[in-house]
Amino acid sequence: MKKQYFSIFLLFFALMNCETSDAQSNKNSKTENNKDSLMFAKIYEQALVRGKCYENLDYLANKIGARLSGSPQNAAAVEWAKQIMDTLGFDRVELQPVMVPHWVRGKKEVAKIISSKSGATEVPILALGGSAATPFGGLVANVVEVKSLEELKNLGKEKVQGKIVFFNKAMNPMFLDTFDAYSDVVGLRAGGASEAAKLGAVGVVIRSLASNLDNFPHTGGVRYEVNVPQIPAVAISTNGAELLSKLISQQTDLQFFMEISCKFIGEKLSYNVIGEIKGSEKPNEYILVGGHLDSWDVGQGAHDDGAGVVQSMEVARIFKALNYKPKKTLRVVLFANEENGLKGGKEYARVAAEKKENHIVALESDAGGFLPIGFSVGAKGEAFKKYKAWEELFQKFNVFKITEGGGGADISPLKPLGTVDAVILPDSQRYFNYHHTVEDTFDKVDKRELELGAAAMASFMYMLSEMK
Amino acid sequence: MKKQYFSIFLLFFALMNCETSDAQSNKNSKTENNKDSLMFAKIYEQALVRGKCYENLDYLANKIGARLSGSPQNAAAVEWAKQIMDTLGFDRVELQPVMVPHWVRGKKEVAKIISSKSGATEVPILALGGSAATPFGGLVANVVEVKSLEELKNLGKEKVQGKIVFFNKAMNPMFLDTFDAYSDVVGLRAGGASEAAKLGAVGVVIRSLASNLDNFPHTGGVRYEVNVPQIPAVAISTNGAELLSKLISQQTDLQFFMEISCKFIGEKLSYNVIGEIKGSEKPNEYILVGGHLDSWDVGQGAHDDGAGVVQSMEVARIFKALNYKPKKTLRVVLFANEENGLKGGKEYARVAAEKKENHIVALESDAGGFLPIGFSVGAKGEAFKKYKAWEELFQKFNVFKITEGGGGADISPLKPLGTVDAVILPDSQRYFNYHHTVEDTFDKVDKRELELGAAAMASFMYMLSEMK
Repeated sequence: MKKQYFSIFLLFFALMNCETSDAQSNKNSKTENNKDSLMFAKIYEQALVRGKCYENLDYLANKIGARLSGSPQNAAAVEWAKQIMDTLGFDRVELQPVMVPHWVRGKKEVAKIISSKSGATEVPILALGGSAATPFGGLVANVVEVKSLEELKNLGKEKVQGKIVFFNKAMNPMFLDTFDAYSDVVGLRAGGASEAAKLGAVGVVIRSLASNLDNFPHTGGVRYEVNVPQIPAVAISTNGAELLSKLISQQTDLQFFMEISCKFIGEKLSYNVIGEIKGSEKPNEYILVGGHLDSWDVGQGAHDDGAGVVQSMEVARIFKALNYKPKKTLRVVLFANEENGLKGGKEYARVAAEKKENHIVALESDAGGFLPIGFSVGAKGEAFKKYKAWEELFQKFNVFKITEGGGGADISPLKPLGTVDAVILPDSQRYFNYHHTVEDTFDKVDKRELELGAAAMASFMYMLSEMK
Repeated sequence: MKKQYFSIFLLFFALMNCETSDAQSNKNSKTENNKDSLMFAKIYEQALVRGKCYENLDYLANKIGARLSGSPQNAAAVEWAKQIMDTLGFDRVELQPVMVPHWVRGKKEVAKIISSKSGATEVPILALGGSAATPFGGLVANVVEVKSLEELKNLGKEKVQGKIVFFNKAMNPMFLDTFDAYSDVVGLRAGGASEAAKLGAVGVVIRSLASNLDNFPHTGGVRYEVNVPQIPAVAISTNGAELLSKLISQQTDLQFFMEISCKFIGEKLSYNVIGEIKGSEKPNEYILVGGHLDSWDVGQGAHDDGAGVVQSMEVARIFKALNYKPKKTLRVVLFANEENGLKGGKEYARVAAEKKENHIVALESDAGGFLPIGFSVGAKGEAFKKYKAWEELFQKFNVFKITEGGGGADISPLKPLGTVDAVILPDSQRYFNYHHTVEDTFDKVDKRELELGAAAMASFMYMLSEMK
């Protein structure tokens, strides 16, 4: 194609126009708007032309890789993040100690569908994070397929006892935002094992929480209820789930074999990595931007949440490069242990409460390094209006919406302290192709999309800093 | 990450709410809006749950592949498109004959940077489409690097005569929309060869028009001026361009070798593939949706413009599946020869003029199968307002903006007939990583993004059909 588009906002013209306008007009709201618009343009120029976040992600993903809490790679990631932060001109860089669970996957999982008609077919699985192991040598049992907890309960003990329960609920494509489809089904992954165990099941197989059909299983946490037997829980790839379901429909006494050897091996010391720039006007008011430094142990944690880590650090780099001094105290926080414990987020909030640090707003990036389409802010009604008022400015930079909502696991423990939680909303369509799989690698991240996200976040933090 | 987002639009609720509202309220504009919203939801359900465009693209890209005008694969694509259209329940399917140029690349191009210090280094090139060949055995000459036509002209004959001109202008990352960055530099690719030839150059090397740094050269058309020697023109990969520039800066008498054997081999018969559903109320008013069926001869033409082809056909499939009869006559047009001649678009408009067919609006999809973020419409002022009024409805479906502008190469010949031109605006960030390269393949297209584009287009065509 070789067409020409018109009327699309050019960063150049923004810079030029704003500078002209600023020189000509008096202090009024138009000038205020021009001042912000000019600052945005300078931030975008930094991110898109002089950006460092892509190169940082290259290192984190390709040189360090997956970094599950307690792993040597997690320690490497902490040291790497500290070293990068030490170059960024923070007033203070701190490693905040936090004890994290250390779970290991053990040897590669094996699973087979065993049919009396067609023999054994190997299928790809991953143990869910935190799962108990199968007995040595594996576990084999008949399979019963359900699509919901209700369906499971209706089957009752009689039909579940001694069996492996196969939760085969696909993510619903009718949700426009894939995070809504994920929320709709994630309860099965987290709580399905205990519900099945209550009815005497010996294991569970979960259809991977994926938007697409492929051969890569998606891990993620399982949560066992207390006083319920901890049965092994695995995710099967979506193609594997389709096959398993088809074979079950053809043969009622189908068996499933699985062998997993994962286990908890105690707690380890890890750290939240924190960089701080003291506020020039309101040093006792804190604004926070962050993501989580840990990842699952497969893939490279590139989108989840390498992207959020490097974008958060980029905010500080851009402020320094532009010689912009935030009016409130800026904290860049790379949280420990989001994936299997949230110990980092909890410890950060505990210390903040203890020190009576007044965190006004916290922004998290933990939905992938994709095209930024908006922000969601955890404020309502009148309180939300001041954020909504920024929408028009962001739209000039193709960040389309500011919505009520909020979110962000790591910053959620700050909410009881009165902090407004906010998240960047990247395009969600591709996230659950890669999430928690071996496919979440650096090559799946587009440089410009990552940089645009960092620019949007830096612009948002600038607005927070300037906010009355 | 395992957070939960709030307040994001759910297709379910749209369907439920709309049906309830419709039953309860009278005929008024709210009902009108609910009616449209309900139709959108049904369209999205068709595209996302029962969609066929991804499976169609799989065939076109993987089973047929690249389909340059005049090639056997282009003939296969025409036959394939006709066969698909024959299953879609059109009132009429037509192959509209059109003569197209037939240019062939010949054997694989070879290029080397030849340094008296470090010897010969092979670099990846592609002949530009329509280029003349080098002499048999290749061409070797000293290289002179410029960044613009002005710089070239300032050098003058003395410094250009007998040399190869290297146009090394990168796409400017400061443009938020990559199509603006492309427009900014594409003139060098199209016209650089003739300008260089006027000063006695023997060949030109163009830095690939790419957003990223990699080893894949991007082809695209070169246009020779009449009465100017036709010198060979090639694109070098962006990494190759960086290397060449570095070596030139180190050694003024650097030489470049290239051998290309491409040529025109006359004209061939091809076709615009046209499907028509007669309008139920205004059969003499036409609304058109289309893309182009041809592609360059490298890669699979998946984003350019396989995506537009399958999305356009999906519009008709969805209307039929929903038993929706367009009020105006709907034409789905898959144009021939967009890439190197625009003969299809010109012939379509010629016949439309001859038959006095009143084309009200034409919508083209030719910017890749990425997340749809809006539409651009070639209407101004008052005339634009009726399209702008649809923006709020589209925003509910995360299609964020309707802007003034228009575009679309294939539909541009209709504009003199009074047709309003419109294009879908997908996210542009990744397009110029793949455009006109071996990398423009099926695996680069995300299923949901493609389907969301088709749903947005079908919704737009529905609004055109209903428009007073």
